[in-house]
Amino acid sequence: MKIAIDAMGGDCGLTATIPATLAVLEAYPDITKVHLFGHETAINKALDSAERILANPLLRQRLQIRHAESQVNMADKPAKVLRERGESSMFLALRALAADEVDACVSSGNTGALIGLARHCCGTFEDVRTVAICAQLPNLNHPSYLLDVGANVDCTASQLHQFARMGCGLVSSLYPLDQRLGQKPKVRALSIGVESGKGNQAVTDAVALCADDASMDFAGLIEANQLLMDDCDVVVCDGFTGNIALKACEGTADYIRSYAQQALSENPRQSSGVEGPSERLLQAMQTARFNGAVLLGLRRTVIKSHGASDAIAFQAAIEKAIILEQGELTQKMMKQLS
Amino acid sequence: MKIAIDAMGGDCGLTATIPATLAVLEAYPDITKVHLFGHETAINKALDSAERILANPLLRQRLQIRHAESQVNMADKPAKVLRERGESSMFLALRALAADEVDACVSSGNTGALIGLARHCCGTFEDVRTVAICAQLPNLNHPSYLLDVGANVDCTASQLHQFARMGCGLVSSLYPLDQRLGQKPKVRALSIGVESGKGNQAVTDAVALCADDASMDFAGLIEANQLLMDDCDVVVCDGFTGNIALKACEGTADYIRSYAQQALSENPRQSSGVEGPSERLLQAMQTARFNGAVLLGLRRTVIKSHGASDAIAFQAAIEKAIILEQGELTQKMMKQLS
Repeated sequence: MKIAIDAMGGDCGLTATIPATLAVLEAYPDITKVHLFGHETAINKALDSAERILANPLLRQRLQIRHAESQVNMADKPAKVLRERGESSMFLALRALAADEVDACVSSGNTGALIGLARHCCGTFEDVRTVAICAQLPNLNHPSYLLDVGANVDCTASQLHQFARMGCGLVSSLYPLDQRLGQKPKVRALSIGVESGKGNQAVTDAVALCADDASMDFAGLIEANQLLMDDCDVVVCDGFTGNIALKACEGTADYIRSYAQQALSENPRQSSGVEGPSERLLQAMQTARFNGAVLLGLRRTVIKSHGASDAIAFQAAIEKAIILEQGELTQKMMKQLS
Repeated sequence: MKIAIDAMGGDCGLTATIPATLAVLEAYPDITKVHLFGHETAINKALDSAERILANPLLRQRLQIRHAESQVNMADKPAKVLRERGESSMFLALRALAADEVDACVSSGNTGALIGLARHCCGTFEDVRTVAICAQLPNLNHPSYLLDVGANVDCTASQLHQFARMGCGLVSSLYPLDQRLGQKPKVRALSIGVESGKGNQAVTDAVALCADDASMDFAGLIEANQLLMDDCDVVVCDGFTGNIALKACEGTADYIRSYAQQALSENPRQSSGVEGPSERLLQAMQTARFNGAVLLGLRRTVIKSHGASDAIAFQAAIEKAIILEQGELTQKMMKQLS
C-alpha cells in the first residue's frame, strides 16, 4: 500500500507529519511507500534530524519526497485555492491520488480547500451531490460515526439520507458483514427529541427516507446527550449541527481533562506512581486517538486530520487511512451507493 | 416573595418538588409563601411524611395547597394542552402568576406546554415574537447563558438579535451593572468557525445586527468547543443548535462522570476517606446545580426545571427563580427590550 502525505499541512506542519509518518512505517511493514509532498529541502532537513531515521536509516528507502513549491494556508479561502491551485503540497498529493500513484491521501490542512481540491481531482460517486466529513465519536463503548460535521451547512432530507448510506458504506468497510453476524449498520438521525416529528423539516423527512431504506437498520432519532452512550453505528445530521455537537463533546472533555490535570497536580501523592482514576480517565479521553475524519462521497480515500494535530494525532489519521484501504472503503462505498 | 410550584410536573413529581420546596423554605426566610399546585390529597400525604415537616411543623404555615384536578403529562402535545387547558396544576400555577398572586413560577413539566401556557397566561413583551429558553452553561470559570436551547427550531437573524438582547437583560438582573464596573454584557454567536462569514445566513446577518447594538459588547463568533471555557456572558443560537450543544456538553460530562465513578469503585483505597481528584471532579460536575432554565420574553418570571429533576435539581430551579426575582428580571428585561 502507498500513502500520500501533505507534509506541510496543519498548524504543526513537518513537526507533526514527519515523526508520524516514520512511526507508521515502523509499525506497518506492508506500507511499501509513503510519498511526502512538500518543500524538499525542509523535508530532508526534518528527516536528517529525525530520531527514527538515525536509529533505522533503512526507513528512508520507503519514503519518496515530492517537491511542492507552495502550500495551502489555513486562512486561504477555498474558492481562491481551487481557482488558482498552483503547485501546493495538498494539490499535488491529491493529483497523485487521482492518478493512482498512491492508494490514499492524508492532510491536516485547510478543510474547505481539501474538500474542493479532492472533489476536483478525484471526483465523487455518481449521484453524490456533496462530500461529507465523517468523524468517529469519542464513544468508548461502541465506535460510532457522525456525519456531516462541517462540509454542508444546510442540508435537504435527501442529502441526510445519502449521508446515512455513505456512513453505512464506511462501517461496512471497517467491520465486514460477516464479523457483524449479518447485521446491517444501525443508523440514527440527530435531533432535539426522540419522539417522531421532533426537529426541523429536513430531519423529519430524512427519517421517512431512512426508515424505507432496506440497506440499513434505521433506529430513529437520537438526542445529543446520548451520542457517547448509544450503540448505533452511524448518526446523521447537517454539517452545522454535526460540527456543533462534535466540538461541544470535545470541548467538554478538554475542559474536564484540564480540571483533572489541575486536581492531579495538587495531589502529588496520587500522581507519584499510583495509577488513580484521574490518570486513567486522562488516558481514556486522549482525543488524539480518534483523529482522522473521512471525506465521504469521493471516489478515493482522503483523510482529514485535525488542523491542530500533533505527531500522535497525525499518526492516528494515517492509520485510519490504512484501515479503510484494507477494508476496501471505495469499493464498499460504490456498492452501498449504487 | 411568593412562588408558585407546579408540584405534579416532571418525571419525579411530588418526590422531587415537595422536598425541594421545604428545603427552600428553610433556607430563605423571606419567602413568605409557596403555593403548591397539584392534587390536594397527594400533596398533603407527601407533606405528612416529609422529614423537614416532622422536624419543623411551622414550615407548613408558609405553604398554600391549591388543588388541581389534572396535570399536564410529559407526552401531551403542547397544541392540545393549550387548546383544552383544563384545570391542570401547570395552568393554574401560571394563571396565579398572571393574576399577581405570586412573583414567579417553577415547573419541571412538559416544555412545549409550559411555554404555550405561559405565553397565553402572562403574555410577552412588546415586539417579542418568540419566547426563548435560556440555560446556564456548566462553565465553572465564568457563568454564561446560552439561548435559545429548544423553543425555536428555525430562527431569523432578527430573532437571534432579540435573543442577544434578552440574554443581556437576564445578565443585568443577575449582576447589577455597578458590580460589573460598568461593563456591558459580553455576547457571542455560536457557529462552526470564528472567522467572519462562518456559519449559515441567519448567523451572519445576526452578527451584523448585534455588532451595531450599543446595549451589548458583541465579541463575534464562538465555536462549540469553547463554550465551557470562554468568558462571555451570553451565547446566542437557534433552538435546534442550542439544544444540541447543551445536550452534547451534558452527555459528555455524564459519560465521563460514570467512567470516573467506575474507576473510583475499582480503587477503594482512594475512595475511603482520601478526597481524590475524581471525587472533586464529580462534585464540580454535579450538573444539578446548573438546573433551572429561564423562559425569556415573558412578562413574568417562569423557570423550567429539567424534566428528570430530582429534589436537589428542583431546589436549584426554585433558587434560580428567587435570585431572578430579587434581581428584578422583568423590570430589567423591559428596560433592555424597550
